[in-house]
Parts: sequence; structure tokens; C-alpha cells
Amino acid sequence: MSQFDSTWSFVDEGNDTPNGFLFAGISAGLKASKKKDLALILAPEGSIFSGMFTQSIVRASCIDICEERIKKSSGLLRAILINSGQANACTGNLGLQHFQIATAKIAEILGIKEEEVLMCSTGVIGVPIKISHLVKNLPNLVSDLKLNNFQNAAEAILTTDLTLKKVLIETCIQGRRIKIAGFAKGSGMIYPNMATMLAFLTCDVGIEKEVWDKMISIAVKKSFNAISVDGETSTNDSFVGINAGNKIEKRFLPIIQKGLDIVCQNLAKNIARDGEGANCLLEVLVQGAKNNDDAIIVAKSICNSALVKTAIHGCDPNWGRIISAAGNSGVEFNLNHVDLYIGSDQILKKGKLIKYDSKKVTDYIKSKMKGRYLLDDIVQIIINLNSGESNGTAWGCDLSKRYIEINSEYTT
Amino acid sequence: MSQFDSTWSFVDEGNDTPNGFLFAGISAGLKASKKKDLALILAPEGSIFSGMFTQSIVRASCIDICEERIKKSSGLLRAILINSGQANACTGNLGLQHFQIATAKIAEILGIKEEEVLMCSTGVIGVPIKISHLVKNLPNLVSDLKLNNFQNAAEAILTTDLTLKKVLIETCIQGRRIKIAGFAKGSGMIYPNMATMLAFLTCDVGIEKEVWDKMISIAVKKSFNAISVDGETSTNDSFVGINAGNKIEKRFLPIIQKGLDIVCQNLAKNIARDGEGANCLLEVLVQGAKNNDDAIIVAKSICNSALVKTAIHGCDPNWGRIISAAGNSGVEFNLNHVDLYIGSDQILKKGKLIKYDSKKVTDYIKSKMKGRYLLDDIVQIIINLNSGESNGTAWGCDLSKRYIEINSEYTT
Repeated sequence: MSQFDSTWSFVDEGNDTPNGFLFAGISAGLKASKKKDLALILAPEGSIFSGMFTQSIVRASCIDICEERIKKSSGLLRAILINSGQANACTGNLGLQHFQIATAKIAEILGIKEEEVLMCSTGVIGVPIKISHLVKNLPNLVSDLKLNNFQNAAEAILTTDLTLKKVLIETCIQGRRIKIAGFAKGSGMIYPNMATMLAFLTCDVGIEKEVWDKMISIAVKKSFNAISVDGETSTNDSFVGINAGNKIEKRFLPIIQKGLDIVCQNLAKNIARDGEGANCLLEVLVQGAKNNDDAIIVAKSICNSALVKTAIHGCDPNWGRIISAAGNSGVEFNLNHVDLYIGSDQILKKGKLIKYDSKKVTDYIKSKMKGRYLLDDIVQIIINLNSGESNGTAWGCDLSKRYIEINSEYTT
Repeated sequence: MSQFDSTWSFVDEGNDTPNGFLFAGISAGLKASKKKDLALILAPEGSIFSGMFTQSIVRASCIDICEERIKKSSGLLRAILINSGQANACTGNLGLQHFQIATAKIAEILGIKEEEVLMCSTGVIGVPIKISHLVKNLPNLVSDLKLNNFQNAAEAILTTDLTLKKVLIETCIQGRRIKIAGFAKGSGMIYPNMATMLAFLTCDVGIEKEVWDKMISIAVKKSFNAISVDGETSTNDSFVGINAGNKIEKRFLPIIQKGLDIVCQNLAKNIARDGEGANCLLEVLVQGAKNNDDAIIVAKSICNSALVKTAIHGCDPNWGRIISAAGNSGVEFNLNHVDLYIGSDQILKKGKLIKYDSKKVTDYIKSKMKGRYLLDDIVQIIINLNSGESNGTAWGCDLSKRYIEINSEYTT
């Protein structure tokens, strides 16, 4: 068996995170609910950080500093402080000051430089961070740091999320055990343009900055940038991927890439299926596109259509809305070449409606709606444009009255 | 008083439509509800037609023929047949045949050429037109043709619309009475890219094709292309503007342009305020942009944000979502220069939150939500980017549970 047959397996319990990384998560009283709201990742010396951030013009000022610190240090950083409750966006100079106070203080406690710390925030826009609560609790946060404490960290970054989003995978290459761990928060305002909501990934293989940046970018494109909950790009979307450890031979890098893809797609799908008010995960596979970008654009256009999302919510195999959403993507294709499937049932063949059992398709969608906690909650749409050889997948969710409720009545 | 002071006034009852145009609207049994579903506009000989159609790749085949007929005839056409109930989109060759059968038959009855007739459809996608019902009723439709019967025509093109959308204005230039009339249908799938839903305009001033095309394009850009209900561009979006009559001096054309703008904006706003499930009209004025296009793009991005729309629905002055939506528009601006108002209350000054009475702003939004039939249902957001001299306005509506209901349970 070739060494390239190494595959990744999921580690059910996150008790054994990538070597050398420490995690912490506590309640600092930033959320009214008193739930955990402050997290910390401490990476080993010499760790390589890669970050992708929101492309919105209106971005939290912490995003600018994070980008700058990664750039200035060539990615050689040590820690990420993450708070939920307040997004520290649209908070002007005060927001910048809070960032600096918090990162200086945690650096002091950890015995590292302020510039080696990033800080990410999520929560309400325009409300200053409860900075005194935060600073007062930094020593507790550091005391909580443990090798395998990332469940706490994953809990502390959630806002309106209903489910924890964390994943740990492992493989073995030439007798060496290798691990990748990731955690994320999502919920609403999910239509990442470039990077996304908050997500953090750690990997215990040493990979140089330039290669790591490229690998992270590939993984993000096929995961966080291929999901939509409501078409909204946030002020604070951030993804940070960190690696540290002994290097491996270059020929094994594709295995690591595969692992990054698995972790990012797992988190991204869990963000989509936990979209505000969602009852299922909508998975759209576009095949036969001219190139991968076109495929993902069409898939996202379908996932992002309010009319497709409400039809899915109503368990209605409304193929007209699916085709219409594809047609609005801006990607050129010929409707007379298009094959369309909902689940295993074909609806269109070369653009023509074929006899299908509408009740069966409705029942298929219904069967996925039983509850968000089932694993088999995936409503799959497959569309083959038959105009090329490239494929792409995007994920979304149904649009329900609950989304309206949550967002008409959102409080801290 | 200069002749340029001529202004347009609204004619309350549409009993006196532009000279020479005949309208009809009847029930042909295309809708299950038995409501009116077939309309006809007959224009005088020598009329000039200008059309703008959906930019979606997936468009009803009737759209292609309409474009072709306008092009081939240099705009010299005579009639438009419009049906609601079935959109005749994604119906393949059968759809083309139905278009040809219907336009040939109506041409025969009217004693004009088939190529002088356009046909527009709206309703369910993918379902063939009930063509035998339609053809059987064409003689009745022609019998209904009257000078001032456009109320019937306006009724016959509606689908899930709750309100009739028609407008008639008049002015006097050098002693000559001039009239412009328009009617439209909207409801869901409203995010026109180029032209829009169905809307038809008639004007009794003769204006040559090239100039008319330009004038129509200007009016559409500032009206139908500046509204959003749900971000969905339809397969059938169509706007046709027709003029016929004696010419006027060139120097009076700006008055006609103003009239076109008034009619198109009136119809567009009525489409937005009658968006599926809507309780108010959201009007976003963007000032101080670098150019008019930027202003409209930012205004549309705000109108189209699910989070802004749900906040408005919840009467929540959630300025963070407004600013975030502006930031996602792709238009560059500096947040530190931005002034923001909701109604008459200023919220941000040069990007900084100023003290404002949150309850008062909530009450302001609430007061607009009393019902769609009030004229004062306009929630106004004004954002000044302070980075240029250009302005633009877009219109939308709140996003309610009713939208979800309508679109999860949509039937013919």
C-alpha cells in the first residue's frame, strides 16, 4: 500500500488536539446570558499564521490590525484572543483602543509581544466591548489554557448558534500521527466573501508561510466561501489557520491539503445547516461547468435564492425557481443542455421536463426536515450544465419564519 | 411664465388615457381563481415601441421573440398581448408554438401582421399556457378594447399582487394636452436586472425610436432597476414603452422625460410596497456618492439586505446592519465620513454614533407599518457617504413571515 493511501479519520472526542496548541474558553460576562464568551488559542513558538478576512468595506477595525500583524510578522505569531457578545465593529477609535488594551494585557500575562497576538470579535455591531469585564478575566482565561481544551474555546465564540461547530481529524504519515482541528461560529450574516464568519484551524505539521497561505486559500474557497445562509457578508468574517511542528516531505502535502479541505468543509456545512431558522442543509452540486469558478457561482446562486429556500422549506420541488436562480448567476449556459435532479429523481433532461413523481420528491425533502440534529438532513440538488468538465458544490439552508423571528427580535 | 414650468399632474381616474391607445382586460380561464388574466394594448399606426427585458440567462422564450420583433420592425409595432397565470418560461418548443399561435390569431382578428404583435406572460414557471382557453377568448378580448379601458388591462396582468398598479398623468405644453399612462405587476421575484417584472407605458407624443429608447432607459434605471423585493430576477421581466402622436419641439423633451420618470417611479414604488408579505415601503436615499451608479448600488444593497429588511419589520433602528449592507455593496467609501439618518433622526455623524432617541426611531418605523393601504407607509433611510456630489434612491420593503408563507405554499 502506497503512503498516499493515508486517509483522514474523524476523532470523535476532541481530547487530543494538534501537538503544542493550547486552548481556553471561559465566561467573562460579555454576554447577558453569562455563557462562555472569551476564548484563547496559544500556538507553539515558530507557528505560521495565515488569515483571510471579510471583503466588506465596513469591517471591524480589529480586522485591519489582524491583517497588518500577520503581514508584518510574516505570519510568525503566537496567540488569538476571541470574544463573543460584541463585534467591536463601527466602534471607531474606542474599538481600536479596546483591541490594543486587550492584546497588550494578554501578551503581558503570556510573556509574549503584543504584536504576536490577534484578536477577533463577534456579536452586536456598534456596541463597545465590555472591556473592563474582558480585561479582568484575562488571568482566568490563561489559567484555563490546556492542551486539549478546545471544546471550551469552541463554545466561547458562539452567538445565536444552536450547535457547537468543531472538528478534529487525524492521519498517519510514515508512522507519524498528524492532527488538524478546527472550530467555527456562524448563524446569521452568512455569505462569506473571501473568508467568513469566525473559524480557526490548527495543524501540527510545519509548513512554510507561502505554501500554507496557498493551501488555506484553496480550502476556504471550497468551503467557507461556498456557503450562504442569508446573503449577508459580515463586518467581522475571519478565518485563521495555524500550523506548527516538524516538517514533512513535500510529496505528502496533498494529504495535508485534503485534511484542510475536510476540516473546512465540515465546519462550513455545519454553519449552513445551523443557519438561523434552518431545518435542513441544502447541498447544490453543479456539474459540467466550463470551469470551477462558474460551477461554484451557479451553486451559490441557487443556495442564495430566497425563492428556492422558501420552496425547500415548503418541501416543494419547484424546479422553475432552481433554474431561474441558476439563470441569474451571471454564468452563461444553454438551458436546452441542462439536466436537473432533486435527490435521486431526475426532473429535467436536456432542459425538458420529464415525468417524475412529484409526491416522491416532496416526501424526499420532507424526510430531511425532521430536525437539525439528524445527520441525514441533506437536501441535494444536482444540476449538470453539460457545457464543460468542471464541478463545484455550495451549501445553504431553507428559509423559515423562524429566521424572520430571530432577526426581527435580535438582542445581545 | 416659461413654457418649461409645465408640470405633470396625476389624473385620479384612468378614464382618459393617451390618445389613440386602446386597452382591454378579461378573464380567459387561465387562472384557477377565474380572475381577469388576459390583457391587450392596441397602439395607433406608426407607434414606436421600446422594450427592456430580463437579463437572466434563463428567460421565457417569448422574451427572445419580443426582442427580435422590436429589433426587426425598428420599433414599429401595433399590439401587446399579455397573459397571467402561466409564465410560459421553461416550456421549450411548446412555449414558442403557443406564442406564435396566440400572436397570429390576435393579429388576424385585429387585421394586422403577426410580427406587429408582442406577447408577455407572467405566472408559474414551467407550466404550458392554457392555450385553448386563451385562443377561444381572443374575440372577447378584442370586443373589450376601449379607449380608456386600462383598468381592466391593469387587473388582468396581476398574479399574487394585492394592489392594482396603474398611473395616469397629464400636462399641457403650448396648449396641447399630453398624457402618459402606465400599469405594472410585481409581487415576488422582484430584483430587476435591466428591465423588470411586467410594466407597460403609453405616451401620446411622437418621439423617434433612438431618442425614445434612450429616454425609456433613463426612466427604467431610476425606477424599476432601483427596487428589490427579494433579490430575485425573473425569467419574464419585461418593460415596454410605446409612444404615438404628433411630435413636439425638441426643447420640450425634458418635460416628457420627467413624465416618464414620474410614471415609472410611481409604478416601481407600488411594486416594492406590494412586495410579498410587505408592510411598508423602504426608501433609501444615498447622497454624496462619487457618481449616480455608486449611489444606486449602495441604496439597492441596503434595500436588498435580509437583515435590514427583518430589522425594519421588527421596527428596530439597527443601524449596524444598514452600514454593514452598504459596506457589502462593493462601492468604496470611508466609514469615518458617513452620516446616517432614519426618518428625521440622525444616527451617525462622520461615522460616529450620536445620541439619538432609540424609542422615537422605533415609533417612527412602527407608525409606517399600520397597513399597506396608507399612503404614508414610507420608512426613509438617508445615508450620506460624503465622498462626492451624486445621489441615488432605491426602494424595497420589510421581510415578514408572510413572505415565507406565500412562497412556501405558492400555487397557481
